[in-house]
Amino acid sequence: MTRMVFDEWGSSYSSRMQTMRRSAVRDLFAAASRSDIISLSGGMPDIGKLPLDLVSKAVAAAIDEEGISALQYGSTDGRIQTKEIICMLMRDFEIEVTPDDIIITAGAQQALDLLGKTFINPGDTIITEAPTYLGALQAFSAYEPSIVGIPFDDDGMRTDLLEEALESNRESLPKFIYTIPTFQNPGGVTMSLERRKELLELANRFGVLVIEDDPYGRLRYSGEPVPCLRKLDENVIYLGTVSKVFAPGLRTGWIIAPQPILNKINLAKQGTDLCGSALNQVVVEHYFNDTPWRKTLERLIAAYSVRKDAMMAALNEHFPPEASYTHPDGGFFLWVTLPKYVDTGQMLSLALDSGVTYVPGDGCYPNGEGRNSMRIAFCYEEPDAIAEAIRRLAGVIEDRVELCRAFVNAGALKY
Amino acid sequence: MTRMVFDEWGSSYSSRMQTMRRSAVRDLFAAASRSDIISLSGGMPDIGKLPLDLVSKAVAAAIDEEGISALQYGSTDGRIQTKEIICMLMRDFEIEVTPDDIIITAGAQQALDLLGKTFINPGDTIITEAPTYLGALQAFSAYEPSIVGIPFDDDGMRTDLLEEALESNRESLPKFIYTIPTFQNPGGVTMSLERRKELLELANRFGVLVIEDDPYGRLRYSGEPVPCLRKLDENVIYLGTVSKVFAPGLRTGWIIAPQPILNKINLAKQGTDLCGSALNQVVVEHYFNDTPWRKTLERLIAAYSVRKDAMMAALNEHFPPEASYTHPDGGFFLWVTLPKYVDTGQMLSLALDSGVTYVPGDGCYPNGEGRNSMRIAFCYEEPDAIAEAIRRLAGVIEDRVELCRAFVNAGALKY
Repeated sequence: MTRMVFDEWGSSYSSRMQTMRRSAVRDLFAAASRSDIISLSGGMPDIGKLPLDLVSKAVAAAIDEEGISALQYGSTDGRIQTKEIICMLMRDFEIEVTPDDIIITAGAQQALDLLGKTFINPGDTIITEAPTYLGALQAFSAYEPSIVGIPFDDDGMRTDLLEEALESNRESLPKFIYTIPTFQNPGGVTMSLERRKELLELANRFGVLVIEDDPYGRLRYSGEPVPCLRKLDENVIYLGTVSKVFAPGLRTGWIIAPQPILNKINLAKQGTDLCGSALNQVVVEHYFNDTPWRKTLERLIAAYSVRKDAMMAALNEHFPPEASYTHPDGGFFLWVTLPKYVDTGQMLSLALDSGVTYVPGDGCYPNGEGRNSMRIAFCYEEPDAIAEAIRRLAGVIEDRVELCRAFVNAGALKY
Repeated sequence: MTRMVFDEWGSSYSSRMQTMRRSAVRDLFAAASRSDIISLSGGMPDIGKLPLDLVSKAVAAAIDEEGISALQYGSTDGRIQTKEIICMLMRDFEIEVTPDDIIITAGAQQALDLLGKTFINPGDTIITEAPTYLGALQAFSAYEPSIVGIPFDDDGMRTDLLEEALESNRESLPKFIYTIPTFQNPGGVTMSLERRKELLELANRFGVLVIEDDPYGRLRYSGEPVPCLRKLDENVIYLGTVSKVFAPGLRTGWIIAPQPILNKINLAKQGTDLCGSALNQVVVEHYFNDTPWRKTLERLIAAYSVRKDAMMAALNEHFPPEASYTHPDGGFFLWVTLPKYVDTGQMLSLALDSGVTYVPGDGCYPNGEGRNSMRIAFCYEEPDAIAEAIRRLAGVIEDRVELCRAFVNAGALKY
């Protein structure tokens, strides 16, 4: 029986499948695992720095002590013991929450999907930074919003432009403002305290929800901590994850939100996956209760810091003067802007030929801008490999820039 | 700063939050864990029958051998090693698939959400059995379809009524027919081979996709196996899970579908959770590779079979003649129909007072019918507890029926 040609089946998919985007990072996943490639594309933490023997013990303990509940269905909102760990983690940010304020999610990515599901009707406006985390654009775009991107500078989201956007959307206010204020993905920039206060003042004045995504907050290599938006305003929806401080393979993140919103999210989560993995939650509990995780994190921070310095030094040495880039104090990424005639999407195949991957910038913009930009990650490779990757990448860029310089000099192109 | 009263924030949620349903099973989750309650509500497998020492070893091996990849991000569609396990499991059903035909999901529940996301536009028609799995109704309803429910009898979905429904929806054909053909949830009935062929013939004639959800297919206690729909027609989308044959706490399920559809689902999954838990997948691999899982499953089947017999005997002994119920050959559930004047939703508080929970039937219907029905599960409690629970439940029902018999006799109510 062959009732349908599946290649011609396109008209039967939902309309949201038209607006949904592919992740360049996911698409590069296979390439990034080739041994001849130095990957500057993925935001993968360095699992090799974890004390795997202690993790193994934690996991074995999880099964020995709580085998039955670790393997059974759990409650949709997550284990109370895991939530207590989250409360402890949040206290480091001087944020006092109780287990009732928390839903455990399958990584922060599921939190983004659930927030899209809970809030966005097709055509609703939402606000993000531009560029922003491409996984957030993927998650939200499934619910067909109109996304307004607000540029950032070295002090984070441009609140003057945010105010203009809110003013000009008075008729149909955005459902929420989504921001990664600390060590932004992909920008690497951190929103200053003054900007944070301005953002919250605007959100309050216009009555718009704020979602603070904070995967990198603990990974600071220089400069002084800035308080979380959630610390400054308890109406802020806060998203956290263990992916960058422990392990993404456990897919454990969380949402902190006001109770009525949490109830709606919980309802959305019932239909999405019934409940998260109890085993993974128990492993997280053991890791944070029974291993010296703060010492491990210090070691991770020290390693990432050296890698970041290696990247900055290599950029300084090798990149052409036409390339500008951000100077992060933490996190995993920095953002490179090239002359506007260079298309980083087209350039990627040349970079792959040279044995380097990066994320072309346009995927991080809501509306297809940023073709002359790229995200590069310093989290994953060793310092020497990073220096080598930047040298190779600089060569690829230099070839492009060189070619175009000739056109510019001949009057055929303008900077 | 208090910019909003969140209780009055309802207008800002997406419209799909209005149509989304709560799960009675999830709501009963807390009650079901009270020690004085015998739970006939949840479809929880008996984890206590697993060889926890072997599972513990499998988990420790997972970390020792594959620590780094078990804890890192993985590919969106799942680990190839896990997919090879699925291929092996499918061969038991005489279904030959390759890893390319499979996406690993966070339980079959995520598969339902992804299928809703991939196919359903608001207002689209879909077809399910009526009653059907309430988690499927939850997952699909988030995408705002119009759901047409087709009743079943002892031979499964009534294909004559399915044909009528397809005929009368010719103008806008359903996006898919969702069925649990084997040991249906909540009905316990199994679709006969003849009905399966009729269903596939109709689906082919009208050009409508079929989704076969098969969590219980291996849990047969009597009667002869019937081939999967996917075996009869390789265009069928097949959903599987390890939840009922191993452990739901690992949230590992899968989708088998034609390649173009799988590509779309993969795209939807990227935004939903990036990837599943690698640790859970590695544990699944070790469980099916390195433990005598077939022997364990035989033990589970033997235990469930005894429980089912205990429930059937108790029903036969205690239930009033006005109550009818199905006679499953496998799975976890059977379906009880009471006289139509008995409201099982209202009756639930009395049952809880008597120390029993069940699932009121209306939650399993797309359109609020079935208020006089209930799902009862024989999977979770020991035979004595099941007999006791049925005795108590019969008392509660008898009180209701008795009260109403008087009204009927007085001519104030009709059967």
